[in-house]
Amino acid sequence: MQTLRLALGERSYPIHIGAGLLGEPELYRPHVRGKRVGVVTNRVVAPLYLERVQRALEKAEARVVPVLVEDGEQAKSWSVLDRVFDALLAARLGRDALLVALGGGVIGDLAGFAAAVYQRGIPFLQLPTTLLAQVDSSVGGKTAINHARGKNMVGAFHQPLAVIADVASLDTLPERELRAGIAEVIKHGFILDLEFVGWLEANLEKLLARERAALEHAVRRSCELKAQVVAADERESGLRAILNFGHTFGHAIEAGAGYGEWLHGEAVAAGMAMAAELSVRAGLLSASDAARVKALIARAGLPLRGPALAPERYLELMQVDKKAAAGEVRFVLLEGLGRAALRGGLDEAMIRESLAAAAQ
Amino acid sequence: MQTLRLALGERSYPIHIGAGLLGEPELYRPHVRGKRVGVVTNRVVAPLYLERVQRALEKAEARVVPVLVEDGEQAKSWSVLDRVFDALLAARLGRDALLVALGGGVIGDLAGFAAAVYQRGIPFLQLPTTLLAQVDSSVGGKTAINHARGKNMVGAFHQPLAVIADVASLDTLPERELRAGIAEVIKHGFILDLEFVGWLEANLEKLLARERAALEHAVRRSCELKAQVVAADERESGLRAILNFGHTFGHAIEAGAGYGEWLHGEAVAAGMAMAAELSVRAGLLSASDAARVKALIARAGLPLRGPALAPERYLELMQVDKKAAAGEVRFVLLEGLGRAALRGGLDEAMIRESLAAAAQ
Repeated sequence: MQTLRLALGERSYPIHIGAGLLGEPELYRPHVRGKRVGVVTNRVVAPLYLERVQRALEKAEARVVPVLVEDGEQAKSWSVLDRVFDALLAARLGRDALLVALGGGVIGDLAGFAAAVYQRGIPFLQLPTTLLAQVDSSVGGKTAINHARGKNMVGAFHQPLAVIADVASLDTLPERELRAGIAEVIKHGFILDLEFVGWLEANLEKLLARERAALEHAVRRSCELKAQVVAADERESGLRAILNFGHTFGHAIEAGAGYGEWLHGEAVAAGMAMAAELSVRAGLLSASDAARVKALIARAGLPLRGPALAPERYLELMQVDKKAAAGEVRFVLLEGLGRAALRGGLDEAMIRESLAAAAQ
Repeated sequence: MQTLRLALGERSYPIHIGAGLLGEPELYRPHVRGKRVGVVTNRVVAPLYLERVQRALEKAEARVVPVLVEDGEQAKSWSVLDRVFDALLAARLGRDALLVALGGGVIGDLAGFAAAVYQRGIPFLQLPTTLLAQVDSSVGGKTAINHARGKNMVGAFHQPLAVIADVASLDTLPERELRAGIAEVIKHGFILDLEFVGWLEANLEKLLARERAALEHAVRRSCELKAQVVAADERESGLRAILNFGHTFGHAIEAGAGYGEWLHGEAVAAGMAMAAELSVRAGLLSASDAARVKALIARAGLPLRGPALAPERYLELMQVDKKAAAGEVRFVLLEGLGRAALRGGLDEAMIRESLAAAAQ
C-alpha cells in the first residue's frame, strides 16, 4: 500500500492506494469506530463489494446502514439525493454519523454532496471503485448533482476524511469504463507532467491489460499531480481550473448528448482533442504536440469527435458552463505538453474550426 | 447606524443595524460593485422593499436579477430552491455572482442555502426584514431547507459577507410576526444575560409598540450575544447548541402541527416554557425563575402550550430532531436565568410532566 497526503491544513487527508484495501478494517477504524455509518452505493457495485466493505466496517466497530441507489449519471439528481436523505433520516443517523461513498464518480459526487448538506454537513470517506474515481473525482472534495440546465450546477466543496483506492476493484470494471478513466490519467500528464506523458505512451498497453503495477503507478501519479493542484487552490479560484482541461467542451458534449449517453471520460477525451486543436489555433501549441495528444487518446480507444451537434449548439452549451466567468467562456489550453494555461475571449470562428479539426 | 462584527477569522463580517439602511448604496458597494446580483425575495416583501433595494444596488454598480418565490415556510423546499437555481442559470449567473436574501428567516435560510450550493458556493448578503431574522436567523451562517421527515435537515454553514438589518422595515411587520421575533430576543436573555432579561421585563411594552430606540437596542443586544456564541463555536460542536433553547420542543411542535401552521418563534416560545419546566424537574432551576420565564413569554402574547399532541408523539418527533446525538435527545436547559446548560439522558416521565406543566 502507498499513502499520499492531500495537504489542506485542518482538512488534510490521506489517499491510500493498493490492492485489497476495501477489506481492511484498520483503514476504517480511526474514522468510524463506534459510529453509525451510511454506506451509499449502487445496484451494480453492491453485489461485488458491499458485503466485504460492510464486514470490514463492522470489524472496525461501525454500525452500518447500506443505502442503495440506481446506477448511472441520472443518480446525480435531487430525487435520488432526497431518497438518500430519507434513508438516513429513517435510520435516525444524527450529526455524529458518517457516510461512505462506495462506487465510481457518480456515487462519490452524490454521496459526497449528501454528506456536505445532510444536517448541515457530516464527514465522509471515499471508496472509489472505478479508475476515473480513483485518479480524479474522489480526490479534491468536489461534490455535486446535476441540474436540467447543466452538469454539476448544485454542489459543495467537501473534503473526505480519507480516500481508499483499491486497485483490485478495477478487475471487475467494464472495458469501456477503464478506457474512460484513462482519459483523466492522460489529462494529468498533458496539463502538468511531460515525463508522465512519456510513461503513458510507453505503458498504455499495460494499463489496458490491467497490469496491476502499471495501474498502481498511474493511480499514484495522477493522485499526486491532482493533490498538488488542489492543495494550492482548494476552491478553484485560479490554478485548479487547469484540471478542467477538455471539460468545457466535454460538459457541452455530455449535456448535448443527454447526460449518461457519453461516459464523462469519453466526453473529456473528445474535449481534450478539441482543446488541443484550439491551443494550436491560439498559437500556443505546435501541431506535432497536438498530434501527440490526439494519438494517445486514440490509442486508448477513446473518441476524438463529439456527437453530431451544430457548432452553434456547442457554443450555446458552453455559455452556461459554470466556468463561464461573467458570461465569457474561458478555456484550459496547452502551452506545450505538460503545461496548461487559462485563456478567455477566444474568437468564435476559432472555436468552430477546432470542433471540426479535432475529428480529423 | 451601529455596526457589530462577527469574529470568524477569514469569514468575519459586519452586522449593520439602523433605520433606513436598505436604501444605502454605500453599504452594498464593497460587496457588489461590477457584479451580477440575484436578489431572492418573496411576493409579500417585494412590493414593500424590492424597488428600494434594487435601486440602491444599481447605484452601487450591481446588475440585478430579482428572483421571487412564494411566502411562508413551505418555500424552504427543494422545489422552490430548484426554481431559484433555474432563474439564476437562465440569467447565466456564474461563480462570480452574488446573492442577496431580502426577507425574513425563510428567505434567509433558502437564499443562504442556495448561495452555499449554487455552482458549489457563491457569496451572499443577508437583508433581514423581520424581527426574527434580524435578531437571530440572519446571523451565524446557518442555512437550510426542510425535509418531509424534519425541519432544516438539509443545509449548510455558509456565512454571509454582511448583515444589513434595517429596523425601519419592522414598521410593516404583522403583529403576530413581531411577537414571534420577540421570542428569540427573550431567548438570548434567558440563556446568556440576566441583565437583558431585566431590561426586557422593563421595556416589553415599548418593543410591542415598536418604539425605534427599544427595537434597536433589542436587535443590537441579541446580535451581540449571538455573535459571541457563534464566534466561539461556528459549527455547533458544543456551546452553540445553547442557542437551541426551546428548539427541541419547538421543532417537535412545528413538525407535529405541520410546517407553517405555527410561526417558528411561537413554537420556540412554547418550547421555552416546556424547557423551563424540564429545568425545574431536573433540579437546575427554581420554580420562581421558571415562573419568570413563563410570565415574560405570556406578556409578549406568545403561547405557553403546544398543539394538542399526545406526549408519545412529542417524544417521537424529538427523537428525529437532528440534535439527537446517537439517538439520545439532548436538551438545552437553564441553570438559572441567563445561564444555559446542555443535558442528555433525561427521564421520559420527567419530559412528559414538563409538557403538561408548561401549559399551566
